Amino acid sequence: MTQLFREFDNCVTAPQGFRAGTVASGIKSDVFIKDLAILASDVPCVAAATFTSSKTAAAPVLVCQERLKSGTAQALIVNSGNANCATGDLGLLNAYRMTELAATHLALENELVLCSSTGIIGRQLPIEKIEAGVLQIELSSEQGNAFSEAIMTTDTHPKRIALEFEMEGRIVRLGGCTKGSGMIYPNMATMLCYLTTDAALEYAWMLQELRAAVDDTFNMISIDGDMSTNDTCLLLANGLAGNTPINAQHPEAETFREALRRIMTYLAIEMARDGEGATKLMTVQVSGALSKADAIRAARAITLSPIWQCALAGGDPNWGRIVAALGASGCTLQMDKYDIFIGDVQVTRQGIAAEYEQEQARAAMAGREIIISIDLHLGEGRATAWGCDLTHAYIDENTLYTR
Amino acid sequence: MTQLFREFDNCVTAPQGFRAGTVASGIKSDVFIKDLAILASDVPCVAAATFTSSKTAAAPVLVCQERLKSGTAQALIVNSGNANCATGDLGLLNAYRMTELAATHLALENELVLCSSTGIIGRQLPIEKIEAGVLQIELSSEQGNAFSEAIMTTDTHPKRIALEFEMEGRIVRLGGCTKGSGMIYPNMATMLCYLTTDAALEYAWMLQELRAAVDDTFNMISIDGDMSTNDTCLLLANGLAGNTPINAQHPEAETFREALRRIMTYLAIEMARDGEGATKLMTVQVSGALSKADAIRAARAITLSPIWQCALAGGDPNWGRIVAALGASGCTLQMDKYDIFIGDVQVTRQGIAAEYEQEQARAAMAGREIIISIDLHLGEGRATAWGCDLTHAYIDENTLYTR
Repeated sequence: MTQLFREFDNCVTAPQGFRAGTVASGIKSDVFIKDLAILASDVPCVAAATFTSSKTAAAPVLVCQERLKSGTAQALIVNSGNANCATGDLGLLNAYRMTELAATHLALENELVLCSSTGIIGRQLPIEKIEAGVLQIELSSEQGNAFSEAIMTTDTHPKRIALEFEMEGRIVRLGGCTKGSGMIYPNMATMLCYLTTDAALEYAWMLQELRAAVDDTFNMISIDGDMSTNDTCLLLANGLAGNTPINAQHPEAETFREALRRIMTYLAIEMARDGEGATKLMTVQVSGALSKADAIRAARAITLSPIWQCALAGGDPNWGRIVAALGASGCTLQMDKYDIFIGDVQVTRQGIAAEYEQEQARAAMAGREIIISIDLHLGEGRATAWGCDLTHAYIDENTLYTR
Repeated sequence: MTQLFREFDNCVTAPQGFRAGTVASGIKSDVFIKDLAILASDVPCVAAATFTSSKTAAAPVLVCQERLKSGTAQALIVNSGNANCATGDLGLLNAYRMTELAATHLALENELVLCSSTGIIGRQLPIEKIEAGVLQIELSSEQGNAFSEAIMTTDTHPKRIALEFEMEGRIVRLGGCTKGSGMIYPNMATMLCYLTTDAALEYAWMLQELRAAVDDTFNMISIDGDMSTNDTCLLLANGLAGNTPINAQHPEAETFREALRRIMTYLAIEMARDGEGATKLMTVQVSGALSKADAIRAARAITLSPIWQCALAGGDPNWGRIVAALGASGCTLQMDKYDIFIGDVQVTRQGIAAEYEQEQARAAMAGREIIISIDLHLGEGRATAWGCDLTHAYIDENTLYTR
C-alpha cells in the first residue's frame, strides 16, 4: 500500500498542540508589517536544529545552540527586520531577553524558549519594541500562515506546507515554513526554517534525519553564494499523535522520513524560486560522478555561477558557461566524457558540442523552470542542486537596502 | 640610491627584440574588429607561464603546457572571439594548427610557437579564417598597443604597461598587457596576460617569481567568481639587454622582482576596475590574520560577495554584509576582536558597530575607488584583494552574449 500524504493548511500549526501568533511591533520601518512572532507547543517538544557554520553567527544562533543541548524546547520567538548579528554582549543579552519576554508571556520556563532574528546586520535590537510587542501576541492554532508571513524579509511570498499521513493507524501531521531570498548559500542549514510535528520522535534519530535532509535540500540551494549569519533549521516534535517514538528500528520510520524529505525539498525549491529578483528556477541534476561529494561540487558550482545565472535570465543556451563552472568546480571529470542537457536538448556530447537545433535549445531555456542535467560518466555519484537566475531586480533589491 | 622605474609606451613590444602584429580575421561577428594577433621575439626566449586549474581547460592551454616543458618559446599567436574550449580532438588539432600557421609565417620551428584563445566556449575555431588572417599580419616593434587591443573581448579598454629600469648599468625593459573582464576568478593565473622582457633570466628563478607574483596579483582579483577555462599568464625573456642571467643570487634580482610586481599589480588592478559593468574598484586589505592563507580567504570572500558588491554599487555602507562574508569565509576570527574600516571611517570596532556618522560612511562609499580595511587582531597575516561592484550592466553584458 502506498502511503498517502495529504496537503494540509496552516503549516507549522497544522500538527496538534501547536499555536502561533504575530504582531507588527515596529522593528521594521513600515509599522503595519508584522515583524514579531511566537510559535509554541502545548507540551514540551523533542527539539533538534542545524545552524549556520558562519564564524560571525548571530546572537540568537548562539542562544539556540546553548539551549538545544538539552534536546528539549517548547516555544520560539522570532523577529524580522533586524538580524541581531555583530551586536556583541548587548546583542546576546537582548537575545536572552527576547526568550524571557516570550517565556513570561506564555508562562513557560526560560530554558524552553528559543529565539531567531533576521534582517539587517550590525544594529542593536530595539528590545523595548519587542517587549511591548510580545504582550500583544495572542496565539492560536489557526495562525501558522500568519507566522510564516511575519518571518519574511525580502521574500515575495511565504514558503509553507503541511502534510498529513498515518503512522501506527494514527493521524500524524508535519508542517514547515521557511524564509529567505537573499544571502542564500547555506552550509549546515539555511536561513530560517521551522518544522513542527505531533509525531513522537527519538532525539538521536531526529537529529540525524534532520541533518541528512538539510544536506540534500537546503544545503543544495544557492541564490547568491552568500552564507547568512543567522541560518537556522529547527524541528519540534511534541508527540501528541501518541505514536511509539520513532527511531531507526521503528517499522514506519521510512514514512516519517519521506514526509520530512518531501516538506524540506518543497521548501528548499520554493526558496530558490523566490530568490531575490529571480524569474527562473534552475534545477541542476548531476549523475555519473565518481562520488556523491563530487556530484555536489559540480551541481552547486553551476547554480553559483553568476555568468551562467545571467545566461539563464536571458534565456541564452550558452552552455560553455556550464562547462567553465564544471571545470572550476573541483569535481573529477574527463574532458571527453561528460554530457550536458538543457531540458530535453542534449547540447554537449562527450565534452564537445552535440548536434542540436539552436531554436530547440532556446525553447528549452524559455520557461520558468529550467532543468540542467549532466552525466559525467565516471561513477555512481548523484546530486541535485537548485538555484535561480540573476537579474536587475537582484541588484535593485540589494543596492540600497539599509536606507 | 632608489631605483627609478620609468613608464614606457607599447607594452609588450617595449623591450628590445619584440614585435607584434594584428588583423581583423573575421572570427568576431564584427569583421572590422581585430581578433588575431602575433607576438614574437627576434631570438628564442626563456619562457614560463601559469595556467587555469580548470578541469575543462581549453585546447590552447594544453598546447602551451606541453610546449613550455622545454622552458623555451619565441612567439605566440592569439585570437579573441572563440575560446577553443570544449572542442575535443578537433579543437586540439586546430590549436596546433594555429601554431604551425604562425611558425610558417615567421619561419620558426613549430615547437617555439605558443597559442591562446579567448571568447565563446564550445564552438570550433574557424581555422580557415585564421589561416587567411595570419598571412596578412605584419609585425613591428610599434604594435604592442595594437596587440593589447586585439586580445580584448568584453574589456572596455586595453590594460597595458611597460617599465624601463637599469640593471648592471644596462637599460632593461619589462612590458605587459592583459585582457579579461568577465569570468574572472583566477586560480593559478588569470585570463590572458603576456609579459615580455629583454632582461636575461634563469628559468627556475623566473618561474618561481612569476608564480609568486601571480598569487599576489591576478589570483587576488575577482569580478564574478567564475574561473575561466583559458587563464594564461606568460612571461617571455629574450635576454637582449645582455645582463648576466638573473637568479636568486643576482645582486639586482630585487630590482627585476619589483618591476615584475609593479607591472602585474597594475594590470591586476586594471582588470578588476574594468570588470564587466563595474563602476567602482574595491580594494580589500586584511591584516592581523592568523596566517597569510587566512588573510587571503577573508579578503577574497569580500570581493566575491554579490550582496556586498551590490551595496558597493549603491554606495550603501551596509557593513553587515562584510561581516557576513567574513564569517562565511572560513578564516579564523574572534567575534569581539575584528575592526572594519570603509576608507578612513571605522564602521566596526571589536566586532560591533563603531560610533560613526552615517553621512561620513556614505561619503567614503561615494568615490570610484573604495578601500575596505579589516584588522582581525589575531596575528601577522596580511593580504590584499581587488574586485568591483555588481551592476545592471554586468547582467546586460551576460544575458545575451552568444547572439
